[in-house]
Amino acid sequence: MADYIEGRRAVIEALRTGMPMKCILMADNVKRDSLVNDILRKAKQRDVVVKTISRKKLDELSDRGSHQGFIAESIPFEYVNVTSIMDAAAQSAERFDGRALVVVLDHITDAGNLGAIARSAECVGASGIIIPNKRAARVTASTYKSSAGAIAHIPVSQVANITNTLERLKENGFWVAAATEHADGVIWDANLSGKIALVMGNEGEGVSRLVLESCDFAMALPQVGDIASLNVAQAATACMYEWLRQNRTEAEGKRG
Amino acid sequence: MADYIEGRRAVIEALRTGMPMKCILMADNVKRDSLVNDILRKAKQRDVVVKTISRKKLDELSDRGSHQGFIAESIPFEYVNVTSIMDAAAQSAERFDGRALVVVLDHITDAGNLGAIARSAECVGASGIIIPNKRAARVTASTYKSSAGAIAHIPVSQVANITNTLERLKENGFWVAAATEHADGVIWDANLSGKIALVMGNEGEGVSRLVLESCDFAMALPQVGDIASLNVAQAATACMYEWLRQNRTEAEGKRG
Repeated sequence: MADYIEGRRAVIEALRTGMPMKCILMADNVKRDSLVNDILRKAKQRDVVVKTISRKKLDELSDRGSHQGFIAESIPFEYVNVTSIMDAAAQSAERFDGRALVVVLDHITDAGNLGAIARSAECVGASGIIIPNKRAARVTASTYKSSAGAIAHIPVSQVANITNTLERLKENGFWVAAATEHADGVIWDANLSGKIALVMGNEGEGVSRLVLESCDFAMALPQVGDIASLNVAQAATACMYEWLRQNRTEAEGKRG
Repeated sequence: MADYIEGRRAVIEALRTGMPMKCILMADNVKRDSLVNDILRKAKQRDVVVKTISRKKLDELSDRGSHQGFIAESIPFEYVNVTSIMDAAAQSAERFDGRALVVVLDHITDAGNLGAIARSAECVGASGIIIPNKRAARVTASTYKSSAGAIAHIPVSQVANITNTLERLKENGFWVAAATEHADGVIWDANLSGKIALVMGNEGEGVSRLVLESCDFAMALPQVGDIASLNVAQAATACMYEWLRQNRTEAEGKRG
């Protein structure tokens, strides 16, 4: 599914993040100013075609009537299947003393959070991200932005059923760990060595009961403050770095 | 310094985050619709006065000409002095087996990042955040938003000189640790037990050379991916959780 990005600031932002674009549609009566010139220059740098069409036609294409003369059409994000994420995990295990990380998002709804998680996941060398194909954030322009482009460098798979996918991961040698504040044990006592599927819950309710039942174990990130409401992307990052710590190689300072 | 928040969506968002407000100014010719009613209802719930003024007057007050009939005036954020952050740290050390954390931001420029860091800092029980009073993000409406209101629950101090402040912290028994990718050692080998001042650098250049020279030690968060560009708030969160791990008490699952 392609995204349509409306408005001058949004289009230039999308060009900056490196989101793949099919084309940019520009109204034929747009007056040149510095922002318009910026868009045209950036589009040229990135080899994105700018097509001039009538404002009436642009109005018809506009979802929200806020195009300000510009609509960009993205190239649909290329999701991969779970098998190729498991292949990437096998390569990771081969290269990094048996370690691999797959991040499973149980109905995260904010595309910005998805991007922030992708950015950190790419940093720790995760093999992929698995998201549901319904009632959950998918990769949009916001994801490119909040991931600072990292979303283009990590495989993402959309699946119909999270619990089935967790079973497949288990059959493939993964331990499935749910991060939830309701767990009895804390993350630092969990054994995260080797191939781990890290399950993060959604912004409001956390990991759902059904998904939790499919996990091998649950673990909590301690929270100490008075309001203590950790953002899901921040929580995911802390968990991913704990996984990396437990699986550090000599390149990450492990003594041989 | 008060902030002026312009536009209907921005005003309602600011009301939601709990940002303290002096008043909301509404143009006298605003037509009632569901969004306007939302603003008025939320303002009433939060006991914020709504003053009706002429649209001409509102136009004059507007910075960006995008008020859509509404400008909210915030109550200036109450920064504290460094002494009260050190007092809070002493209380933390008393209560939590000698541990305390102060986060020092060396010219973070994005108010959203400041908020995200504040949110995680509140979660781990940090005693305060220290920021420069020039060329750096200060607490704005974006900070309230990205901190999900946590910024109101953690002391923030603005200082004229970061290196002087680090010296004061050292005199007060803090170890000053810089997080920088250029460090020789990794964070997991750093001794973060007890009272730690964690120095995070700005989004572009990281910790500046002068500030780095005032730190007791530097430590890196390993990055494994191909592009491997960790967001500063995510990096701060991973560092803060490593501090918490090294200082866990029985409440956080430490065996006695």
